[in-house]
Amino acid sequence: MKLASLKNKRDGTLVVVSQDLKFMATTESIVPTLQAGLDEWEDIAPELEKLYDKLTSKEILGSPFIPSLCAAPLPRAFHWADGSVYLNHMALVRKARGAELPESFLEEPLMYQGGSDILLGPHDKISVINEDWGIDLEAEIAVITGDVPMGISAKKAPNHILLVMLANDISLRNLIPSELRKGFGFYQSKPPTAFSPVAVSPHTLGKNWDGKKLKCPINASINDKLIGNPDAGTDMNFDFGELIAHAAKTRPLGAGTIIGSGTVSNRDRSRGSTCLAEIRTIETINNGKPKTPFLKFGDTVRIEVFDENNQTVFGSIEQTVKKFEANK
Amino acid sequence: MKLASLKNKRDGTLVVVSQDLKFMATTESIVPTLQAGLDEWEDIAPELEKLYDKLTSKEILGSPFIPSLCAAPLPRAFHWADGSVYLNHMALVRKARGAELPESFLEEPLMYQGGSDILLGPHDKISVINEDWGIDLEAEIAVITGDVPMGISAKKAPNHILLVMLANDISLRNLIPSELRKGFGFYQSKPPTAFSPVAVSPHTLGKNWDGKKLKCPINASINDKLIGNPDAGTDMNFDFGELIAHAAKTRPLGAGTIIGSGTVSNRDRSRGSTCLAEIRTIETINNGKPKTPFLKFGDTVRIEVFDENNQTVFGSIEQTVKKFEANK
Repeated sequence: MKLASLKNKRDGTLVVVSQDLKFMATTESIVPTLQAGLDEWEDIAPELEKLYDKLTSKEILGSPFIPSLCAAPLPRAFHWADGSVYLNHMALVRKARGAELPESFLEEPLMYQGGSDILLGPHDKISVINEDWGIDLEAEIAVITGDVPMGISAKKAPNHILLVMLANDISLRNLIPSELRKGFGFYQSKPPTAFSPVAVSPHTLGKNWDGKKLKCPINASINDKLIGNPDAGTDMNFDFGELIAHAAKTRPLGAGTIIGSGTVSNRDRSRGSTCLAEIRTIETINNGKPKTPFLKFGDTVRIEVFDENNQTVFGSIEQTVKKFEANK
Repeated sequence: MKLASLKNKRDGTLVVVSQDLKFMATTESIVPTLQAGLDEWEDIAPELEKLYDKLTSKEILGSPFIPSLCAAPLPRAFHWADGSVYLNHMALVRKARGAELPESFLEEPLMYQGGSDILLGPHDKISVINEDWGIDLEAEIAVITGDVPMGISAKKAPNHILLVMLANDISLRNLIPSELRKGFGFYQSKPPTAFSPVAVSPHTLGKNWDGKKLKCPINASINDKLIGNPDAGTDMNFDFGELIAHAAKTRPLGAGTIIGSGTVSNRDRSRGSTCLAEIRTIETINNGKPKTPFLKFGDTVRIEVFDENNQTVFGSIEQTVKKFEANK
């Protein structure tokens, strides 16, 4: 099934969306919000699935689905942990600095905890106070889990993946070096993340989901120009089972935890890049310095995945960068 | 006023607690959970205050308040960002390594983002899979904010502090070095955090709250032996206004954001320490190596603040460390 949250109050209003993303049906007789559904997933999911089947088969008509009215599937979440498991990306970043990829990067996934109290809808503006902070997109795959027990194995962890979606892990690149130097990880350099209009159950993804990863290219564009379309199923050094097991090593995970893959990146350079930092890194490796600037106010970004029939799977993330005037 | 959440489902049941922590009254006619109250604080808080006044003045009787039945005031939260602003602690840790405190540590607060999907009640067990991970307590002050606009100044930020509580930021010390070496900050080394039975409004703290910090000693004990009672209002290099402004530099904060102070620590060594890492650090500075072990299964920790009348303000955090058997 495909689920979306229309903008409404803090947690949105859950709707079921047809397979072709053309129609939606309200879930008010089943559950009001996605988080409430995740909290009781075993009882709620079968009801939502039935509604999805009726909507997709046109047994019920529904109303037109308009992605621009969507919040993130979870407009706020209790846990958002983002990995960085396409190590080609990390290897390039290191190479530009003249450094090797540490061995430990191959042994366990990199993961940071992101802000989840405010998550952006797919068409929300990227509001930034200062253009000089180095505004960048990162096209990612993300999953939503149910309750996960502490200490779960990577083998069992995929059973807890309930939904899959796309993310734009917006980053402020010029704030990263000083933040990481302090040793406590990312905080100010990772403003609110945006998510695709719909979250899709693994079952509905069919052969495009192998149980642990999405096997489709992800397209990233800036101002309508494609910058990359790497395959999400290729060069993923740790799959979502391994990511969830890593996250749950010392704690249980609560229902509605979002786990991200990090910027999708393929070794095949012809597939381009899905963030500007990587493009600038390759420019630095080739020419000694970066040429492509970071995002400017007014720039637009677009992230989308198409299936084998060239049909959009999750809908598109489409965001414009906008100056925010702080009222100090 | 003083608020607590009784253990019930995922978000608990909100109750108002009398000033002396002896009685409680249900808020079911006002709002079911603390998060729901925070979401509509301007409307809800005056009603809760009225109930608190009636309960404390014994105009209504209430029922006995039993801290062991409490979840954390927010049993799960959308945002938990923890600072480290008692720099004496950081200076000692560095000194033991033979390193100076970087200048940048004096310019802006250190802050990491903690897991908030599962927060522990004040008497919940500390469940850890492996004793060798270096289990430690950290006694902290934490505040809960309302909605905070992006880019707020440190001067205006304290207006958004709605409640104050105590935290035990449980840490797995032996997982920290390899985790920080990877550059992405804490994740596995910070399992679920525990909070005091009640959260108290700044107004109710009276002269013990100066608008930006708590001016009381915080007591930390292990197996009923006091290890420290540093004053939370002394040697706090950044106050909660500065911490909130730091957190909101590149993003707005959603209602129910928890901001922590980091381990309370005074330069006056006679006040002891509120975490074992600091005790071990001082032992290393004095004798070349640490003597005090980290927590073992079966050990108990206690964190509490008393007012000038020797009355408990937030109730006590009392936790026992327990082995967790993972079902892989």
